[in-house]
Amino acid sequence: MANWLETLDRRAQLRARAGLTRKLRPRSAADPAVDLAGNDYLGLSRHPAVLGAAAAALSEYGLGATGSRLVRGSTDLHHTLEAELTGWLGAQQTLVFSSGYLANLAAVRALVRPRTLLISDAHNHASLIDGGRLSGAETVVTPHLDVDAVRATLAAAPGRPAVVLTESVFSVDGDLAALARLHGVVREHGALLLVDEAHALGVTGPGGAGAVVAAGLAGEPDVVVTATLSKALGGAGGLVAGPAELIRHLIDTGRTFIFDTALPPAVAAGVLTATKLARSGDDLRAELARRADRGVHQLRTAGLTVSTPAGAVLSITAPDAESAVSWAADCLEQGVAVGCFRPPSTPDSRSRLRLTINAGVPSVDFDRALDVIVACAPQGARTGRQVTA
Amino acid sequence: MANWLETLDRRAQLRARAGLTRKLRPRSAADPAVDLAGNDYLGLSRHPAVLGAAAAALSEYGLGATGSRLVRGSTDLHHTLEAELTGWLGAQQTLVFSSGYLANLAAVRALVRPRTLLISDAHNHASLIDGGRLSGAETVVTPHLDVDAVRATLAAAPGRPAVVLTESVFSVDGDLAALARLHGVVREHGALLLVDEAHALGVTGPGGAGAVVAAGLAGEPDVVVTATLSKALGGAGGLVAGPAELIRHLIDTGRTFIFDTALPPAVAAGVLTATKLARSGDDLRAELARRADRGVHQLRTAGLTVSTPAGAVLSITAPDAESAVSWAADCLEQGVAVGCFRPPSTPDSRSRLRLTINAGVPSVDFDRALDVIVACAPQGARTGRQVTA
Repeated sequence: MANWLETLDRRAQLRARAGLTRKLRPRSAADPAVDLAGNDYLGLSRHPAVLGAAAAALSEYGLGATGSRLVRGSTDLHHTLEAELTGWLGAQQTLVFSSGYLANLAAVRALVRPRTLLISDAHNHASLIDGGRLSGAETVVTPHLDVDAVRATLAAAPGRPAVVLTESVFSVDGDLAALARLHGVVREHGALLLVDEAHALGVTGPGGAGAVVAAGLAGEPDVVVTATLSKALGGAGGLVAGPAELIRHLIDTGRTFIFDTALPPAVAAGVLTATKLARSGDDLRAELARRADRGVHQLRTAGLTVSTPAGAVLSITAPDAESAVSWAADCLEQGVAVGCFRPPSTPDSRSRLRLTINAGVPSVDFDRALDVIVACAPQGARTGRQVTA
Repeated sequence: MANWLETLDRRAQLRARAGLTRKLRPRSAADPAVDLAGNDYLGLSRHPAVLGAAAAALSEYGLGATGSRLVRGSTDLHHTLEAELTGWLGAQQTLVFSSGYLANLAAVRALVRPRTLLISDAHNHASLIDGGRLSGAETVVTPHLDVDAVRATLAAAPGRPAVVLTESVFSVDGDLAALARLHGVVREHGALLLVDEAHALGVTGPGGAGAVVAAGLAGEPDVVVTATLSKALGGAGGLVAGPAELIRHLIDTGRTFIFDTALPPAVAAGVLTATKLARSGDDLRAELARRADRGVHQLRTAGLTVSTPAGAVLSITAPDAESAVSWAADCLEQGVAVGCFRPPSTPDSRSRLRLTINAGVPSVDFDRALDVIVACAPQGARTGRQVTA
């Protein structure tokens, strides 16, 4: 075996011993599991109108975009989608990327100037972290949700350009950044605030427009929003929304925009329809909120340690990585798919089950899924107060 | 206007003065232009079987994958596609990503160990360059296609782990790396060779399997292949193919794999069908070769400076950025879409028209397009020998 492969193999064995091996499990179209793992919060990925719009675009435009946005990939669907998103987000302009990861890489890099200090929440997504690494800027990681730490970090760098990076609804625990307070601190310093709304868009805020709109920060000149189109909007792709000058800069210089094949037109068409449905989906959001309340109550009553969900994501603390894996596997055996987050893909040392609430899952299935999760809980997970009915 | 927006605006004005502003032009489904700009080399993005497979998967699985490959995004379609690609490429294993850009970021990073030296061809794609930047490895850029420079760079770093990064068919000029010679040099040093086959897959090699297979390097333990699924395969997404240990490493640790929503199932299904069609598409490849010969002959006869295409891409040198832009605009006015590559998206100081050959374009339209390109050529472009018929 070649030397480098021996090295990779040795590292794989170390991961296996630490219980950190990952396995791809293909699901079939007929997969019977109740989905509490995916990010299709509003159930729009299977909405007939979404599928109809995508199918029509597929036959009109073909499968792929056949080129980058600047060469052949910009269809009128991409532009209509961008206009719809701009209206929804209350932004000046929006640019659609082929993935949320690539959108974040471009956005962070575009905001960095010489001497810029990046201040990044400890729970931020890998794409925000990689954007910082690509930009080459000095980065300070502040404790999760700690606005005072952000203020202190800014105060210690007077006169330096600074960019604060945060998610709104965080992907791991589903908790919410204090955006209004954070923006106050940012504004005071003359810094910029980048908010990744991946798990908030469609789920929180008026008309599902996200936490930035809810906090009254839409269209502010020192706020930039990124998001994915692959979660509540049921498709794929990402976006950057902000001042017109930023969008022009990204079109002219954003490497992950210029040198990347555009989002498939059929996906753009499906997401466009999903956006319209999400905007008028107050009933779906009310159902998500009801289920979140029900879920948190039932799980906490069973003695489990549960995060407080701001959207459609919540997490349950597991005693350790190994028991998290077997807990999730036991649930799956009982027909319930849940996420299992372990180091190194958790931002702290904790392992968790990660549950998502999907308005497309029948209510009776959701209730049964909660029962299964409680029934499969390892003893060590029941650290809280246990209440018997 | 906020300070940072003033800075962006000033930079935009500088770009505008240098003729480097980019503009997104939406195309409609009914766009009448002859396509010599996109990368749909085999015309498969509109093949009825491809569209049929995608439409079926759309209605079976929904629009998006609803999660990362490791959480909910791995459908049996992704796994079937990976098996098909593995067989085609003669690799040990293949991993599909949601974009070629993200595949390259993960691949380069996975190959870098402490003290690794990256050696990168001057014409390499932005995603390979960004992969190097993210890895933090020291990088030496060698002149385009210069195997001797690679040898000298390796010789100057005895005992250091090294990775040589190259495209096979290069995206800008469509020329071909000398893969067998390059691999000889790499093997001699005990280094690794990463080959990006984005513009070769489906177009070159036996059964369209690419230039690595053509060079007899398939399955070699010191060769890693990356590619996109968005060019000859007509869809979207990317791949990394190589030793099983590498693929396992990417599944366990590849950030752009783990933390990214999977390729939409309908795209995976369409690309799977396209792969089968590409494998049996010798007739399409023969037609590409005939058109490439015809194109080069006619353009050179007209006195234009034309690259020698190894696949379905060729470039024509323009006198400067401004005349390249107006040349492409004149062609489009005559109903012919061609690419226009200018600094900073060209690896040297030259501006070019970039033509792609698409087997889906009727032959008569292709011939007319060549006439248009010649007729619209600015005087300064005719630097070569002019032959009148």
